[in-house]
Amino acid sequence: MSKKKLPSRTEDYNDWYNTVVMRADLADYGPARGTMIVKPYGWTLWENMQQALDRRFKDTGHVNAGFPMFIPKSFIDREASHVEGFSPELAVVTIGGGKQLEEPLVVRPTSETIIGHTYSKWINSYRDLPVLINLWNSVVRWELRTKLFLRTLEFWWQEGHTAHATYEEAQEETLQMLDVYIDFARNEAAIAPFYGRKSNSEKFPGADVTYSIEAMMGDKKALQAGTSHNLGQNFAKAFDIQYLDNNNEMQYCWTTSWGLSTRFIGAMIMTHGDDQGIIMPPRLAPHQVVLIPIYKDDDQKTIVMETVERISSELLDHDIRVHIDDREGFTPGHKFNHWELRGVPLRMEIGPKDIANQSVTLARRDIVGKEGKSIVSQDNITSIVSDLLIVIQDSLLERATKFRDSNTYEPRDYDHFKEIVADGFALAWWCGEDTCEIAIKTETKATSRCIPDIDLPVKGGTCIHCGKMAKDKAYFAKSY
Amino acid sequence: MSKKKLPSRTEDYNDWYNTVVMRADLADYGPARGTMIVKPYGWTLWENMQQALDRRFKDTGHVNAGFPMFIPKSFIDREASHVEGFSPELAVVTIGGGKQLEEPLVVRPTSETIIGHTYSKWINSYRDLPVLINLWNSVVRWELRTKLFLRTLEFWWQEGHTAHATYEEAQEETLQMLDVYIDFARNEAAIAPFYGRKSNSEKFPGADVTYSIEAMMGDKKALQAGTSHNLGQNFAKAFDIQYLDNNNEMQYCWTTSWGLSTRFIGAMIMTHGDDQGIIMPPRLAPHQVVLIPIYKDDDQKTIVMETVERISSELLDHDIRVHIDDREGFTPGHKFNHWELRGVPLRMEIGPKDIANQSVTLARRDIVGKEGKSIVSQDNITSIVSDLLIVIQDSLLERATKFRDSNTYEPRDYDHFKEIVADGFALAWWCGEDTCEIAIKTETKATSRCIPDIDLPVKGGTCIHCGKMAKDKAYFAKSY
Repeated sequence: MSKKKLPSRTEDYNDWYNTVVMRADLADYGPARGTMIVKPYGWTLWENMQQALDRRFKDTGHVNAGFPMFIPKSFIDREASHVEGFSPELAVVTIGGGKQLEEPLVVRPTSETIIGHTYSKWINSYRDLPVLINLWNSVVRWELRTKLFLRTLEFWWQEGHTAHATYEEAQEETLQMLDVYIDFARNEAAIAPFYGRKSNSEKFPGADVTYSIEAMMGDKKALQAGTSHNLGQNFAKAFDIQYLDNNNEMQYCWTTSWGLSTRFIGAMIMTHGDDQGIIMPPRLAPHQVVLIPIYKDDDQKTIVMETVERISSELLDHDIRVHIDDREGFTPGHKFNHWELRGVPLRMEIGPKDIANQSVTLARRDIVGKEGKSIVSQDNITSIVSDLLIVIQDSLLERATKFRDSNTYEPRDYDHFKEIVADGFALAWWCGEDTCEIAIKTETKATSRCIPDIDLPVKGGTCIHCGKMAKDKAYFAKSY
Repeated sequence: MSKKKLPSRTEDYNDWYNTVVMRADLADYGPARGTMIVKPYGWTLWENMQQALDRRFKDTGHVNAGFPMFIPKSFIDREASHVEGFSPELAVVTIGGGKQLEEPLVVRPTSETIIGHTYSKWINSYRDLPVLINLWNSVVRWELRTKLFLRTLEFWWQEGHTAHATYEEAQEETLQMLDVYIDFARNEAAIAPFYGRKSNSEKFPGADVTYSIEAMMGDKKALQAGTSHNLGQNFAKAFDIQYLDNNNEMQYCWTTSWGLSTRFIGAMIMTHGDDQGIIMPPRLAPHQVVLIPIYKDDDQKTIVMETVERISSELLDHDIRVHIDDREGFTPGHKFNHWELRGVPLRMEIGPKDIANQSVTLARRDIVGKEGKSIVSQDNITSIVSDLLIVIQDSLLERATKFRDSNTYEPRDYDHFKEIVADGFALAWWCGEDTCEIAIKTETKATSRCIPDIDLPVKGGTCIHCGKMAKDKAYFAKSY
């Protein structure tokens, strides 16, 4: 009960993050080094995210399937960039059923290779295209420095894998799924990410182009929160995914892949959280409203609980996710802290005074203290609560957008750039060369996050680092 | 297009099964030996099953969580029966991130051990109980003889894991989840399983008691389609899951686990299928109705498609899962066969004659040929279709129940028993000894499937094999 105070975000952001994740019962470490247990409260959040994404995937014509976690090791070697990117991170099964395996199996770090192998069998003619499949599963990457949600040995995600007849279709798909992620981030998670193309050194191993969404965390570092890859014909050639076109000629397919993972939970925590703990965006919150009955004796309890149950049913009937905290042996104050830490967007207190006045007391999680509190009538409580949840959702997005924009600058020169990326995002002209990017990273710890391809004058400025002519502007920031 | 005819079930049941699974696009083998790819049509079926089960789990107070797939190898060794049962089937990761691991990790064959380890950390006092958690994931067992859905290296399932303060509560949970599986089988999958307690030799490694549902397949063999285990204090003692009771004394918890897997898809195929292919129970069918437009030229097509689209929207608005097969270049006859093979419960044909008569032609999948066809008015088409889907669902359950009952007998003597289990189920008195069960298996290939604990006279009969006094009756059958 008497747990020590949360670390404050300004004093030690890292400690704050680790403490809230554990103490809010979102996740825990598993017994094998670096693995994660997502606890029921965290998993319910993930289920809500899955539903919001899955609906968007199905609306854009995708279907789900289930693919094996085991991939013959030789598959990884077939695409040159892919093997280079993933080989160091593989978990390898060498023993099965008590016997040494002739060919070791890797536990999928991502499924492009087994998808490539399979699509080459499934796709024969242009009539079979496009193939639009998504997988919900977990993948394994042997990370050395782990952090719950952000980087663990195994994590949960979705990976979309599509095959098309033309480059144009594949590019359209890649951008469509980037849009889906932006829409999900904004309208479900109340996160306003920057988005754009990744630099050459930051793109997915095996992609022609990677697009990403990049969110600004509370400590002004960037977090890559979703990626969409145009894989060109790289995997089609490595795995022989060909189709007979309508001129009866064999053509290689154009493929894409795109993914968003439980890492995104970390992004939500670090976007919205405050020194009291987590703040869940109402649309994804496991509990949208927590109802706290307040009473001093059994008589009061009987009367209070009657109203609590009635209001809870009304809200549930309108698909509002309500939780009644009727635990015995805990003070209301303890319960307030408990649910503040866990980020429930709206708290409803009902005590004898509320019963007498036919009112309830509401407390917004996003506005701490008295300013966030209001006493409202029990009449129309459902519409009051629904409206307020929308207000909270909008206000979280507005706050996140403002925070992002007020910490993003266009640098005058490289000294200014260094100053900016020490504590924010820089949007800077850049020559696009790997060497400049490496030098910037060494000198400032910031990397290019994404290239927004926004409307730019035909002639660009000059690279913030080397001064050469630059075609692109990119966001630079320190990142997770 | 010109695929050869399906094998008939009577000629070669095994060949029939393998052929329909592949040809109906439910599943395929993965590149690593014995692994399975569940294709979109099969995965949609699994998603519908997941929803129907998950709703029941949540209604009975359970929440979902995510646990790691990797378990330290030493965990498996802690519970004596468990290690004996699962050791021969393990997939072992020995290399991670390019290095030999100090302690190998097994890919979970089931999660009792990692759950035990974790619950021992999470549970402190009686206030923390019960813990009611379910996981949706995949598990790996190194099977040598594989068959799609029935036995593959990796399969998808749910595994529930609960911890309780008393034996009674754990037993109540175990039986409650058995009831959930029976209810799901009957009311969603139209399967009428027998159910009861498993014999000592057939129970889960580490359980005190295992209960199962056992369905009769079209070849009169049994398929275990779901299990619920009372684990007693076996895992609580092996993993030190203790709680402080309200007298301030430490007590071991009582735990349960229960699971149902993609194997159940095999049970549905082999319960309802016929020589034309699969028959999907309407409540779980990916497509409940397939709409086939019939026309000879573009003018007819325009008129027909208008009605097809209108009726499709009407049905969709009432949450009926409709699919329009408007593929060009395929005859209606080809489409009929295509969807018959895939088991869509109801086919709706709309041609120029239907347009003229304001009618549609319906064909039930469960009644082949003219008897299953009817011409109905387009007015009230939604209620006609909903009603018919219920009729089909009920009729599949009735047919499966009749088939089961008309192939289950109580044997007069052991000769009669042998005759029965050669082609059906026997419900026989049995002494309960392992030795008798082994002898029966050797002599007849049949094993005890479950002990129904039905109302029996206080004094039992005599064992069908050894003639000794018997307390129990058990179902015996050859099984998958």
